[in-house]
Amino acid sequence: MIVILTGGTGGAKFVYGVRQVLAPEELTVIVNTGDDLEWWGLYVSPDIDSVSYVLSGLFNDERGWGVKGDTFECQQAMKRLSRPAWFNVGDRDLAMHLTRTQLLNEGKTLTEVTAELTAKLGITSRILPMTNARIETRVDTPAGELSFQEYFVQRWYQDPVKSVRFAGMEHASPAPGVIDAIMSASAVLLAPSNPITSVAPILAVPGIRTALRTTPASVVAVSPIVANAAVSGPAGILMAAHGFPISIAGVAKVYEDFIDALVVDNQDAEAAKKLQRAGLKVHATNTIMKTAKAKAALAQAALNVASQLNSSHAAPAS
Amino acid sequence: MIVILTGGTGGAKFVYGVRQVLAPEELTVIVNTGDDLEWWGLYVSPDIDSVSYVLSGLFNDERGWGVKGDTFECQQAMKRLSRPAWFNVGDRDLAMHLTRTQLLNEGKTLTEVTAELTAKLGITSRILPMTNARIETRVDTPAGELSFQEYFVQRWYQDPVKSVRFAGMEHASPAPGVIDAIMSASAVLLAPSNPITSVAPILAVPGIRTALRTTPASVVAVSPIVANAAVSGPAGILMAAHGFPISIAGVAKVYEDFIDALVVDNQDAEAAKKLQRAGLKVHATNTIMKTAKAKAALAQAALNVASQLNSSHAAPAS
Repeated sequence: MIVILTGGTGGAKFVYGVRQVLAPEELTVIVNTGDDLEWWGLYVSPDIDSVSYVLSGLFNDERGWGVKGDTFECQQAMKRLSRPAWFNVGDRDLAMHLTRTQLLNEGKTLTEVTAELTAKLGITSRILPMTNARIETRVDTPAGELSFQEYFVQRWYQDPVKSVRFAGMEHASPAPGVIDAIMSASAVLLAPSNPITSVAPILAVPGIRTALRTTPASVVAVSPIVANAAVSGPAGILMAAHGFPISIAGVAKVYEDFIDALVVDNQDAEAAKKLQRAGLKVHATNTIMKTAKAKAALAQAALNVASQLNSSHAAPAS
Repeated sequence: MIVILTGGTGGAKFVYGVRQVLAPEELTVIVNTGDDLEWWGLYVSPDIDSVSYVLSGLFNDERGWGVKGDTFECQQAMKRLSRPAWFNVGDRDLAMHLTRTQLLNEGKTLTEVTAELTAKLGITSRILPMTNARIETRVDTPAGELSFQEYFVQRWYQDPVKSVRFAGMEHASPAPGVIDAIMSASAVLLAPSNPITSVAPILAVPGIRTALRTTPASVVAVSPIVANAAVSGPAGILMAAHGFPISIAGVAKVYEDFIDALVVDNQDAEAAKKLQRAGLKVHATNTIMKTAKAKAALAQAALNVASQLNSSHAAPAS
């Protein structure tokens, strides 16, 4: 079983790649829920939805969110009723939020609701929320503390960031299946997601980071930073806000206590050598996922790195 | 001020007609809420929506419900998630239900929510729910007790009906403005709505029937029964279930304690004479509202009857 930790658009692309090179039944995806929000009275889980749409073939690759070919009639009608409309919700996408909200209101957990929804979409991979507790990623800025979607979608991540925190984390525990999946995986891959707002919320759920440190599985991260800049989004800004260099060394630093290897872009081959001399296994390849082929190739590269680590781990015993 | 009591598709057509011949500010519409339902976790008020769409020019006349030109992408997506889809909700229509549900959850009353929504739609007539209590019209059949929408939409009103009741009515009181509107109106018109499931719920709200009996306004009903059959829907079946003849005499009987006049179709001119001999003022005209012109003409006829009654009431004093 391969486990991916993921969130955001970089994560969605990486999951798309892994899906091309792996049987769906071999894949468990542990998903960030810190970006979840209540919107129009509905519970929206953008990262779970993106992964669900990717794995069911419904994902809108061009936009990087939502359903391919979706329409926005309801959203237009909401605008006419003077309701907030800065967060985009397509008409087909809305069905997920309506159903999730209803099932949650019936008392089901997010894990159960996600299993039910993904089964209806014909997905045979397992998608697990990181926790069933309600976590809200909050971004502290000079304009005040913002929800992640306010910071990212409404305000186009233009505010200077002081820090990021995960409200509700003190009462959180990993969702059922999460620790088991990490402990029993043959490899754990960290998608090239934003380390601070997509991966760090997962790592902050009490117990998950310890599981990553202690799992016998190889843990391989893919860097979302290429040539000292984020491939997309505010990953660089947010890493800097938390005192990490905007570089593959910064990424390595965020994950230093539990990764066995880091996959970086060819553009960072020189910097990779320095990291390797410091003792981290680093593999350089193309990490820019513009095409389906590039996505699959990156996924295969990460899986190969994990597989080689497994072989070398096993070597002394043979 | 003209007050209309209404519900259902016959009511929507009649309101459309009145709107053609009256300034919108002169119109107050008191609407049945017994057909309201929770659908996909949202509070749907079909009769309030129909009247709102009619008065804002959004109404889908061809279908007799919903928004003109609406799409059904969300509903199709709900079907794919195996959610119930027998009650039709368009994507634009959904915006009303989402907003109403959110505002109700914020603690606003249905009266307040309706005022807010209709203002956003640019409506300057007043639309009042009959009550802010949650009333459910329940239809007792050999298959068990059904909600009105289960009986009417899901099962195409094919079940034999034993009786109809309005659950929740014991705790209901008229919504703010309802009694005032009836008492201070120059005329109260009963739309040619189903007497048992569209008008009777309004009449059953404690205080409303008494107000209709005592108001100085002329009260004029338009018969939904023409030539011993309902123009559309189950009005005939339901009247029979409650022991009323399926005829204009039956309609007169349902409303006998408070109407001053009944408007009937020309096809019932003979039966009308009999009613007139029994002491009721009856006006025969075309009541089949196939065209905008026919709707306006019927509305004008009903208003004229009320106006003549007002003159004759006033006569002794002059």
